[in-house]
Order: sequence, then structure tokens, then C-alpha cells
Amino acid sequence: MSYYDYQLTIDKILNYIMSSYPNREIVYWPYNGRRTMLTNTQFNHRVRQVASLLLELGAKRGEAGRPGTRVAVLDWNSLRYGELYYAVPSIGATLFTVNVRLAPQEIIYTMNVAKPELLFINIDDFSPLLKPIMGNVNSIKYVIYMSDENKVPDDHVDVKMLNYYDETAKQGEASFPELDERTPATMLFTSGTTGLPKGGIHTHRGLVLHSLATIGAVVQPPIELKNLDTAMPLVPMYHVHAWGMPYSLPLAGVKIVYPGKFEWGHMLRLIAEEKVTFTAGVPTILYALLSHPDSPKYDLRGVKMIIGGAALPKGLLDAAVARGMTVISGYGLTETAPILTISHLRPEHASLDGESRKEVEIRTGLPVPLVDLRVVDQYDNDVPPDGKTIGEIAVRSPWIFKEYMGDEEKTRNAWRNGWFHTGDAAVRLPDGYVKIVDRMKDVVKSGGEWISSLRLEDLISTHPSVAAVAVIGVPHDKWGERPVALVTPKKGQQLREEDIIRHLERYVSEGAIPKWWLPDKVIIVDELPLTSTGKVDKKSLRDRYGNVLKQK
Amino acid sequence: MSYYDYQLTIDKILNYIMSSYPNREIVYWPYNGRRTMLTNTQFNHRVRQVASLLLELGAKRGEAGRPGTRVAVLDWNSLRYGELYYAVPSIGATLFTVNVRLAPQEIIYTMNVAKPELLFINIDDFSPLLKPIMGNVNSIKYVIYMSDENKVPDDHVDVKMLNYYDETAKQGEASFPELDERTPATMLFTSGTTGLPKGGIHTHRGLVLHSLATIGAVVQPPIELKNLDTAMPLVPMYHVHAWGMPYSLPLAGVKIVYPGKFEWGHMLRLIAEEKVTFTAGVPTILYALLSHPDSPKYDLRGVKMIIGGAALPKGLLDAAVARGMTVISGYGLTETAPILTISHLRPEHASLDGESRKEVEIRTGLPVPLVDLRVVDQYDNDVPPDGKTIGEIAVRSPWIFKEYMGDEEKTRNAWRNGWFHTGDAAVRLPDGYVKIVDRMKDVVKSGGEWISSLRLEDLISTHPSVAAVAVIGVPHDKWGERPVALVTPKKGQQLREEDIIRHLERYVSEGAIPKWWLPDKVIIVDELPLTSTGKVDKKSLRDRYGNVLKQK
Repeated sequence: MSYYDYQLTIDKILNYIMSSYPNREIVYWPYNGRRTMLTNTQFNHRVRQVASLLLELGAKRGEAGRPGTRVAVLDWNSLRYGELYYAVPSIGATLFTVNVRLAPQEIIYTMNVAKPELLFINIDDFSPLLKPIMGNVNSIKYVIYMSDENKVPDDHVDVKMLNYYDETAKQGEASFPELDERTPATMLFTSGTTGLPKGGIHTHRGLVLHSLATIGAVVQPPIELKNLDTAMPLVPMYHVHAWGMPYSLPLAGVKIVYPGKFEWGHMLRLIAEEKVTFTAGVPTILYALLSHPDSPKYDLRGVKMIIGGAALPKGLLDAAVARGMTVISGYGLTETAPILTISHLRPEHASLDGESRKEVEIRTGLPVPLVDLRVVDQYDNDVPPDGKTIGEIAVRSPWIFKEYMGDEEKTRNAWRNGWFHTGDAAVRLPDGYVKIVDRMKDVVKSGGEWISSLRLEDLISTHPSVAAVAVIGVPHDKWGERPVALVTPKKGQQLREEDIIRHLERYVSEGAIPKWWLPDKVIIVDELPLTSTGKVDKKSLRDRYGNVLKQK
Repeated sequence: MSYYDYQLTIDKILNYIMSSYPNREIVYWPYNGRRTMLTNTQFNHRVRQVASLLLELGAKRGEAGRPGTRVAVLDWNSLRYGELYYAVPSIGATLFTVNVRLAPQEIIYTMNVAKPELLFINIDDFSPLLKPIMGNVNSIKYVIYMSDENKVPDDHVDVKMLNYYDETAKQGEASFPELDERTPATMLFTSGTTGLPKGGIHTHRGLVLHSLATIGAVVQPPIELKNLDTAMPLVPMYHVHAWGMPYSLPLAGVKIVYPGKFEWGHMLRLIAEEKVTFTAGVPTILYALLSHPDSPKYDLRGVKMIIGGAALPKGLLDAAVARGMTVISGYGLTETAPILTISHLRPEHASLDGESRKEVEIRTGLPVPLVDLRVVDQYDNDVPPDGKTIGEIAVRSPWIFKEYMGDEEKTRNAWRNGWFHTGDAAVRLPDGYVKIVDRMKDVVKSGGEWISSLRLEDLISTHPSVAAVAVIGVPHDKWGERPVALVTPKKGQQLREEDIIRHLERYVSEGAIPKWWLPDKVIIVDELPLTSTGKVDKKSLRDRYGNVLKQK
């Protein structure tokens, strides 16, 4: 007897496309290079050639709970990245998708945590990083360089340098080992707005289930993804598996377009020439597609898009819909592979008109299958689904980091009572949809109830004389914390504390916010401190204004 | 720290519908009773009440590799069966879906293998079975009777009899234990055309994955299932989980209609009144819907259907398409939960006209995600994808019986070389689709090559004087086996061996079959022996004619 205990491993997705969509296309067309088109059959062949190279270079397999050889990749959204997404995990090694947007010293920090032995690097854009990396990360045994412009590296480094295309082209097809589905497949780092990036591991099992489940949600209205679609992922492949699309899209049988580096004019051209019907990305991407000087030349009707990474602003949705696009929201974290929710429509929304439909589409959404999602108060009790009471999103799913590497405290803090606490503050609407209102660390915790700093900032910013605003929670003897607003006036305008309070009192009388949300203090300032990524630095504001509500 | 290791258990499907589709409807409307409508929220409440009753009656949970208390159910497609589909596995007990179409002594045989402690029985139709079961199956501790007509049982039996609705209505909501996903969820028996029915077990893991994966295929053209659909499963719930629909349809967010006993006029009425847009069943069901005297009164346009259990005949597809229906094929076995393939369309078929599209729709199909499928020869090598060479379908998937209970030999024979051998003979078309041509046991194995008895029978039956035909493999000294045809002429007609051979030679010259497929002998007989289910009894023919090719 030889029963086969089928494991949920990433090579099974390759099996699927080989049997069900052998001739479906994958296109790679970077702005600085030529168009390449592979069928799934050819892609499978390439993946196995790359896998063969990995084995030749000594990559070793891991097992449940223990990563294999880490393989670091620095690249844009390329076909070769797509090949590595399959080849690395399928031999049991661990794909380390290096976040190229981090500062060089942060990249080096994450590398010294991950300890990769192989480094795949796009030298068209990242060759300046090569020397600093090789000078500071001594785990690397081989560098495999990749170029769309037939470049070769200038820099001399102390390990062997190999050309990706030359080396893989001469390989035969590797066959894949039988892996336990709990073998690590990828290693990712959170972008770490506070403190150093934290690493974690996603398993084969998690990623296969994430793919099946997210497709199960994206096929619903209004996206209705099906095998007739052409999809171009506009989420970087170094950012949480490009939201899982390199693994999930093949299950949907769609044509896939990898656009290389995100060059807006080129991406618009690809949408037209490759007849792209589906994409996904952060709001900035959508904004860029709509506002690029060439944009009016392109017909975006029928292009469907999922927006994540930040809330979908209503104005941006309006602009996209005016161009004939269909746009909804998604939500997730690095720790959650990433997708947790998608704001697809229910049957009762089928007849909604434009504005009420948009109100649903900009929500954070509904959990996809295999995600159990709660919005909980500080005692981990569910908040009432009233659209008002703020709680923290806590989830269970097969695709969540088991732990933050080397950070027991952060792990323990996230995994409380068997639920992973996301750090996102949200309300649950009466019909069950979730809507994020803030980050938990920015929520003002007042007397056991939570106040959304974002919501107050939104309302204060509608005052005609306000240039910028930040609301922070400031320690308070009686209530624990109370909101304090820091406001900068527009150039040449005058603002007093009473102006802001009176402005907010109108929203109180309209029922938009409760009276107890009114800030205890409004401080007019000349400017607000910013972080390195250009966001208001609330941490330094909390430090600076932490005593303003203290009894004298 | 309290990491939650999310298990793929059936209660997670309930979690999903509660969070994503709390108000979607489940309708139960039997021909002999009134219409009931529950929302998913109410359904979840009912499931937990039923679970509470099960616990009160002493049902115990199993664990990975060991079933819990077996709970036997005899019923048509009812809402209460739907409740038991969730309640029984979710407390860790094992749902034993009794095949009510078996002969009473076979039912009793399967029960004495399964050893259920609880028996749920629809007494409107199955009360005649109650005494024989209770007289011969001594594991049963409680009988819970169910009726759509407020009936109470006449028969006195030696265990406590409880009314399903009375007993469940007074229960509170059970909470479900954390189960290992490999805990048995259901126990099924093959219908066993040869020999006694063989039992096997499907796990929570298998059924959850089966549900996600099959929905992933049904959303593709031409079915394109989405949450706007209303689905009425017309596969009996005692037959391989009604093809998984009670578990998979909720993941698609559709409205579900359970029609009770299949009464054709009533089912047509339900299609109209409940606005059913999707169903699935065996060809006989589709035939009945199309040919019922009331059928012309009903508009079937837009009704989508998946046909399985037997090949979809072209003529039946024609008739359905003429009524505006969309029909494709599916394929699977009791051992495989059941779904392995669905004949959905690929992008290249989008522009096909009626007849060429139908040719795709009547194929056996493409494997659904997480099914690895091969068509192999006697040495387990893949046959060429030429649409001609016959092999056996062998599969791997997370949802296949690990073993036939108490039958090591049958288990070993099915699980050869790590592949489950289905016993179905098929060809692989050049584009990868699979098409079943015969049962392996009926295939004629001639000189290492295989001949489809079904195909020869189809061709012989087109002779105008042929009433019935059976082709069998007969032992042959040189070739191992050679085909022999047994033919009965139409009443009052004459037939000679040469007539049949000459008739077939035309197909040979047209290239429809190779010359070496011509039967070595055609025997004209008065009648063909039939099995108890009305099929030609090829086993007895093989016994009787086993020597006709022996050298004298």
C-alpha cells in the first residue's frame, strides 16, 4: 500500500496550471526592456531550470518549523521574480523577498537576521546596494545578477557572480521533493514604522490556502475574476507576496502581466496593449494611473482594481469610477500573508446606485474564507456591531505568522487569547462589514472607550483655515487618556482653540461624533514633526505634549 | 503566548457564512410539506441546537485517524439533513449518510460495519426500514424520527424514540470543540456494483479543501457561480455529500434550496418560484426535468447545471441547450469526496459556436485545484495525450479515502505507487482535457493496449437491426484478451456476424477506430443477462463466453 498524503505545497499550483491551463500566458514587459511571453508550460520549465540552479548552488531544504537555505531577492515585478516565487519554495528553500524601499542599513539589518546564502539582484537598479550588502552580510555565498539591459556588474565583490539567464538556461528540469506543508516558504519583514523591521515566516500551507481563499472572494461581484481576465499585479513582489497574486492568479486561469519597475506611462501602455482587466495596488498607484499626463489617452473602462495598504479615499474612488473602472478595498498585514478582508458586494447591493455602492466599496470589507475576524475591546470582548464602537481587529487564519523572529514579547503581545491582534482599530457595521478607523497605537483610550484620532483629524481638516492637524491621546488622571489636537493654520490665517471646538460641535450636534470625543485641548502650532516616510510623527508629539493635561 | 493553529474543520464554514453572509437564505420546501426559510444566522443557531442534542444523547468526538460516535441518517434532501451535515462533524462525531437506495439487507450490512449509536430517520418514507434495522443492528441507542407531515412512528422498537423537531427546539446552542482537521467527518459506502459495499472515511480537512477547490472551478465559464445565484442541489444528500454542495455552496454565498424527495413536478415548480439558477445531478435528473409533462410550462432559460455520476449524453445536452440551459460535466467517485474534474471552459473556448462548445462540455473535464490527475497504462506510465490511447485515471488529492475499511487488498490495489487508481478508463485529449471511455473492468486488454468496450458498443448499436449489444474481453492465447461482441437483433430482424463486422469496418476505414479493435467474434444471442440494477451483466457474460477464443 502506498497512500499519498497530499501536502498543500506551492508546487501543487504549478501542477494545476500545467493540467488545466497549459497554454495560458505570462507576459513580462519592463519599461527598459523587451516583451517576453511564456505559456504556463514554458513557465513550469523555467521554474524547474531555476530550481536546478538553486540545487547546484547548494540550496538545502528545510522542514516543518525550520527554514531551508534563505534565498534573497532584490527585484521589481519581473518574470524571473515569478520564477523564484515557485522555484525557491518548491525545492524546500526559503524565499526572502527583500524590501528594496527600506534604507540600505535596514536592508543590511534584515539580511543579517535572515542570513541568506544566495542573493538574486537586479543590477539595472540595485547595483549601488551590492557593495554595501556584500561588505556587511557575510552569509552570502553566490550573487546571481539579473538585468533587462544585458548589463554586467561593475563592482568586484568577494563571492562568485553568476548571470541569471546564462546559468538557468543551461540547466535541466529539477524535480521537486515531497515537503511537509508546514515547511517555511517565505521570510518577510514588517516595514516597522516603530523600531527595527521584524521578521516572520509564511509556510507552504498558509500560502496555498491564502491563494484558494482569496480567489474565492475575488470571484464575487463586482470584480468577478475569471479565466477570461488579464491581471497585472501592481503591488511590488517584495511587499507581502504582491498580496499573494503570483500564487493566487494562476489558480484563476488568468493571463498575468509583470510590468517590471512601476513606470506610470509604461503601465498605462501595458493596460492598453495587453488588455489588462484586473489589477491591485495601493491608493498611490491608482492615483498615478489616473493623473499621469498620458492617462486621458487611455481607455480604463472595464479595468477592475483592488486597493489595499491604506484606506481607499472616496475622492479617488469617484475619479476611478468616472473613468469606468471598478474599484473595491482589501485589507491585510505582512503578518497575515496578507489578505484578511475584501469589500466585495453582497446580493443586496446588486441594485445599489453609484453613491451607496461606493460607500460599501470603500469599507475595509468582509473576511475571506478561512479568516475568522473579530473586533474586540481591551478585554477581548466583541464590540457591538453598531458602526460606532471602536475595537481592535483580531483574527485567526491558517496564514498568519506564528511568531516574530527573535521577539518573544512582540509575539506574545500579538497572540493574546488565541487571537492575532492586528493593531488596527475598526468598527463593525450592523450588516457585518468591517471599517478601519485608526491604528491602535494612535487611538485615544478614554475611560475604557476608544476614540479614533483619524476621524477627529478628518473633521478638523474640513475647517477652511486648517492646513494640517494631528490628534493624539494625552495622559489624563481621571480618563486615562484624552484627545488633544495639534493644528497648523493655513498661511496667513488666524486660528484659535475655540474655532476648532466650535467647528467640531457642529458635527456633535449632527450626530457625527459623540460629545465626549471633543478634544480637551487644541494647540495651535506652526508646524508638525514628520517621520522619515513623511507621515506626522505622533510619537514625538506624544512625548512633547504628554503633560498638557496634568493637574497643576 | 497563545498561537492558534487554525484547523480546516467544517465549523469554519459556519464561521464564514456568519461573518460574510449572515442574511443569505436557505429554503426547505418538500413536496409533501410547507416552505421553511432560514437565514444563515438562523441556520447556525439550528445547527448548534442539533449539536446540543447530539451531545445530550452521548455522542463522543473522535480524533485524527479515529472516528467519533457514528450518527446514521436516512433522509431526502432536507434542511434537517443540512443541519446534521454541520452539527455531527462539528462536535467531532461522524456523519454516516445511509444510502437509502441500497437493498434493505445491504443497508443493514453497512450499518453493522459502521455501528452507529444514533439513527436519524425520515419516517414519512423510511418507516418500513425501521423494524428491520432495529432488529438487526444492535449498536443503535436512540432513534430520532423526522417528518414533514407531523407523523409519529407506528412501530414499537426497543430503544428510545425522539422527535427531531421537539428535541432540538428545546436545546441551547452548543459550542464546538477544537478538532484536529484529520478527524473523520463522514463515513460513506461505495455502491458496490460487484460485491458488498465498501466503507471509507472523509476527514474535515478533505471536505473543507474539496469545498474551496470545487467552488474555485465552478466560478469559471460557463457556470460562473457567484453570490447572486440560487442553488438547488439535485444530488441526493445520501450520495457522496451531494457532491459536497452542502459544504461548498455556502462558501459561494448563494441562496440554497433543499427540495426534499425528488418529485419532478415539484422540482420544476421550485425552479420557477425560488428562481433557481444553478443545480447539479445525474443525467436522469436532467432528463426528468426536460421531459416531465409540466416541463414546457416552465422557463428554464439561465438555469446552469453540472451533470455527473454518468456521462452527459450529447442528445440530452442538445435538449437542455434548446431550453436555454447551460450544462457541463463533472466527474468523481465516492472515494474522492467526490469531485475530481469539471468540464469548465477555457478562454480559447469563449468564441466557440454551439456544437464545438458542446463537444467540450460533454468531456469529463479538467482537474479542479488540488487534484493531480494522470491517465496511465498498466505500468503506471502516462499515456500520450492523443485522444486515442486508453489508460486508467489515477489521482492524488487531499480528499481521497485513505483506505477501504476492513479491505486491505482493495486498498492496496487502489493505492498503487502513491496514486489512487479510479477504475475509470479514459483518454487524454491533446489540449489536456480528460474523457472517460469505459470502466477499467470492462476494458478489453489486448496485447498491452486497451480497447473501450463502450466505444465498440456505441458503434455496433448504430446498426439498424441491432437491439442490444455487449462487448467483453475474452481470454486469448496470444493477445491476452480480445473483444467479443454479443448482439441481439431487433424483433423480427436477422443478423449475421458478417453484418456487424462489415458495419464496423466502415468506421475503421473512416479512422474512427483502429482495425485491431474489430471483435474476433460476434455472437448473435436472443437476450443479454441483466444485473439487479438493470445493466448488462458483463461478469456473467465473461464467465459464459470465456472459452470461445481458445485454440481447439
